[in-house]
Amino acid sequence: MAFKTAFIFLFSLLYSSYSAPHPIHFFPSSLRPEVPSLSTQNELYETKYFTQTLDHFNFRPQSYQTFQQRYLINSSYWGGAKIKAPIFVYTGNEGDIEWFTQNTGFMFDNAPFFQAFLVFIEHRFYGESIPFGGKEVAYSNASTLGYLSSTQALADYATLIIDLKKNLSADGSPVVVFGGSYGGMLAAWFRLKYPHVAIGALASSAPILNFEDITSPYSFNNIITKDFRSESENCYRVIKGSWKEIEDTALQPGGLDKLRKHFRICENYISGNAVESWLATAYIYTAMTDYPTPSNFLSPLPAYPVKQMCSAIDNPTGENDTFTRLYGAANIYYNYTGNATCFDLNDGSDPHGLGEWAWQACTEMILPTDGNDNDSIFPASQYNYSDRANSCEAAFGITPRPHWITTEFGGHDIKSVLKRFGSNIIFFNGLRDPWSGGGVLQNISESIVAIVSSEGAHHVDLRFSTNEDPVWLKKVRRREIKIITKWLKQYYEDIANPFMMQADPRPGSTGPDGHA
Amino acid sequence: MAFKTAFIFLFSLLYSSYSAPHPIHFFPSSLRPEVPSLSTQNELYETKYFTQTLDHFNFRPQSYQTFQQRYLINSSYWGGAKIKAPIFVYTGNEGDIEWFTQNTGFMFDNAPFFQAFLVFIEHRFYGESIPFGGKEVAYSNASTLGYLSSTQALADYATLIIDLKKNLSADGSPVVVFGGSYGGMLAAWFRLKYPHVAIGALASSAPILNFEDITSPYSFNNIITKDFRSESENCYRVIKGSWKEIEDTALQPGGLDKLRKHFRICENYISGNAVESWLATAYIYTAMTDYPTPSNFLSPLPAYPVKQMCSAIDNPTGENDTFTRLYGAANIYYNYTGNATCFDLNDGSDPHGLGEWAWQACTEMILPTDGNDNDSIFPASQYNYSDRANSCEAAFGITPRPHWITTEFGGHDIKSVLKRFGSNIIFFNGLRDPWSGGGVLQNISESIVAIVSSEGAHHVDLRFSTNEDPVWLKKVRRREIKIITKWLKQYYEDIANPFMMQADPRPGSTGPDGHA
Repeated sequence: MAFKTAFIFLFSLLYSSYSAPHPIHFFPSSLRPEVPSLSTQNELYETKYFTQTLDHFNFRPQSYQTFQQRYLINSSYWGGAKIKAPIFVYTGNEGDIEWFTQNTGFMFDNAPFFQAFLVFIEHRFYGESIPFGGKEVAYSNASTLGYLSSTQALADYATLIIDLKKNLSADGSPVVVFGGSYGGMLAAWFRLKYPHVAIGALASSAPILNFEDITSPYSFNNIITKDFRSESENCYRVIKGSWKEIEDTALQPGGLDKLRKHFRICENYISGNAVESWLATAYIYTAMTDYPTPSNFLSPLPAYPVKQMCSAIDNPTGENDTFTRLYGAANIYYNYTGNATCFDLNDGSDPHGLGEWAWQACTEMILPTDGNDNDSIFPASQYNYSDRANSCEAAFGITPRPHWITTEFGGHDIKSVLKRFGSNIIFFNGLRDPWSGGGVLQNISESIVAIVSSEGAHHVDLRFSTNEDPVWLKKVRRREIKIITKWLKQYYEDIANPFMMQADPRPGSTGPDGHA
Repeated sequence: MAFKTAFIFLFSLLYSSYSAPHPIHFFPSSLRPEVPSLSTQNELYETKYFTQTLDHFNFRPQSYQTFQQRYLINSSYWGGAKIKAPIFVYTGNEGDIEWFTQNTGFMFDNAPFFQAFLVFIEHRFYGESIPFGGKEVAYSNASTLGYLSSTQALADYATLIIDLKKNLSADGSPVVVFGGSYGGMLAAWFRLKYPHVAIGALASSAPILNFEDITSPYSFNNIITKDFRSESENCYRVIKGSWKEIEDTALQPGGLDKLRKHFRICENYISGNAVESWLATAYIYTAMTDYPTPSNFLSPLPAYPVKQMCSAIDNPTGENDTFTRLYGAANIYYNYTGNATCFDLNDGSDPHGLGEWAWQACTEMILPTDGNDNDSIFPASQYNYSDRANSCEAAFGITPRPHWITTEFGGHDIKSVLKRFGSNIIFFNGLRDPWSGGGVLQNISESIVAIVSSEGAHHVDLRFSTNEDPVWLKKVRRREIKIITKWLKQYYEDIANPFMMQADPRPGSTGPDGHA
């Protein structure tokens, strides 16, 4: 077996194959996606900076260093401190906060209804929120990168929110946190660890159970397999059978040239593994973003892109050999705009600044996702922690702590642990999202609830609503809004605040998203 | 005003007067208390060591350093992993864990009833649990001391408990945490932050609300005032009037000699301030340990020592001037054994290893307790954060983070924050304990409850039971046992475990403490 589907990052486009000399980066520069063309984009947010403490948990002289943490705000919908109108905070994940903000329309769509102040906080070591004066020093080695951790990020958020509320004289305004993917994990954990700062959390597509042996290491790729297989059995079989064909071709004399020509790979680096990784990446991220409407999150894509890929495989244009079929599929992910002249397997561009996830995936974020059973659409393989540990030692000179996340945040027996502890968390998962296998898929208690959508992909609920949204998606959002409304009502009742939520979105009524 | 009642440590005997050249340490070596003479002491526990991570929250190469953390166990009462018998863990506070263990008889007294495994974990940087190979390096400066923090200690406990359960093959055994004073704060916070590790917490005399402006800075000394005043108005007036008399005497020619003679101060360091601090320390710690039975926690003391002190003041032997009265009172705290030849104001001994609390009180543990209003038994004074900050800068070269504890653990509006969040915490407070003002004195929810005893002192409930215990104390303990029993029952029901608690301590029945 020549390549492994390993090191899948939550959002990241890095896709590493252990046998390749370097991790392979995507988005050939010729194909970088446009920033989403939002008509209101200039009005979406203002940019602010907060002087943040480098190390919250120690008191060494070095711990007192600070950095400028970026956060984006929109106060235009806010009802104000006087009526204790709520503050909605996005707990930023592993990339540029502007990108996440532009893909979290749910908060903008519903801010008017809730009269909410919107805040989007950038995660330390991403975007512009870089300690040590900049990336050159911050990213240079483990001594500086070592301050990049989830617990520090959560403490950043608590510190910033408390300060912001003080500055707004809005001590009584309830905070609800939102996040998708790793940001959703942070949102859920934030509610659990900082209940005095946030009254509730919407954690969308947050695989908080994808640690240790809580979730099967085959789950992630099995869901991708199911996604493609659900479109057509032939599509699944073609992809499943293609790996050996690629490997065999690569080993033939002139085989790499043949692959280069078939897949329009640019005239530089190529290898069989690299082509396989390039294709696998397309399948994986298309499955993750298998949205019901056209989107431009990881890549510009049509609606239902997995269906489109399988359609390209099942009904190829021109030749009908395997490579032509696969090229058609890959072209949907890598070249939906149709502008590509060739694809650069060696392209290291990272338009959303996701690269430092590699550090997190080598320290605490040990999510075993790269097992493939015999039915997998990818070649069969075992999850192997040692491989990860070795490559992390080689890359950063540090050893992962694979048990830290469950030590700090739990995960085992979550149902009995949280049945009588905690409250006010929504876990949304779409079952077409490969990460859903590591999500919370069952209600834990009356107020720690799972919303599961069989047709949904990665945090689809958080996206801007459109006129083409299917009914199931509108229902999901309406349910989320209803639950959040309940939290806020309860909060105001508990503090005996005269300001009470009057509106109550009901199915059938004109919902707050304007699309009921 | 010549001295301030400042820098009161939770358990610590350090008592600093800002105007004195050095903090004044107590327990003259001639007067060091005996280790409590427990007949079963040799069988109380076995000593173990755990290889603990220095820095849980960062991933710098330095973070991976380890140290040997001491913990004490007693497995003789345990029902075993097979029946998922519980594990009771004491979350160690700022001193030698053996000392706390010997003063937490409650866990031993009740282990047989619960068939509980007992664990007492030493707090990092105290006792034998010293990073960096020993105190010489660990205590040398802020770069090493900087790893002494409450959040690191809590993560230590989580890490150790998870590992211990794994080694005992006792994954299903529920853990209940116990702690008194700072250890009680840690127990409560541990349940809140690590609900996946502990199903409940008994937090005894835990002043988790004694931060920022949540509790009045006059509260601590007002309770001491009330304690003495409740014994006799004359006692209060004599002490209250004595400070000026001491200061005036110290300024007279030969005045210090007069003080030395009156108070049997040894032939070395003396000053008016030092005598005042020495006396204030006696009043403060006697109020804290105003137990209903003879004790030897901070110092060997008779039952109801505040009453005894006031009796010495109200009915002096020999002369009846102020100094003779005060000497009689001080003698109860400093010389109950009657062996002292003189008292050394300059004695720096620290038999329980509490010294590093000075670091904690200069970083995160900013508990404003040293205000004195006009009615205080001590001279009137304002709480002044700047004084603390300046002395901390001078002592350690670091600035406190006075808002960190409430950022990390909350405290403001605790009732509304925890009303619908969290469960299974008992907050015990005795209202004669000066720390009770910063404790949780009202029920927060059905399972986050306050047990308040008007006659109790500092974590009196956790002490070994005796035949002389008053009825109110027996009732407090029985209620605690009943609540813990309920937690365990619920846990076993939730996991559908066949082993259910059969016994149910009821008032009137033979209680598990054997003293009903």
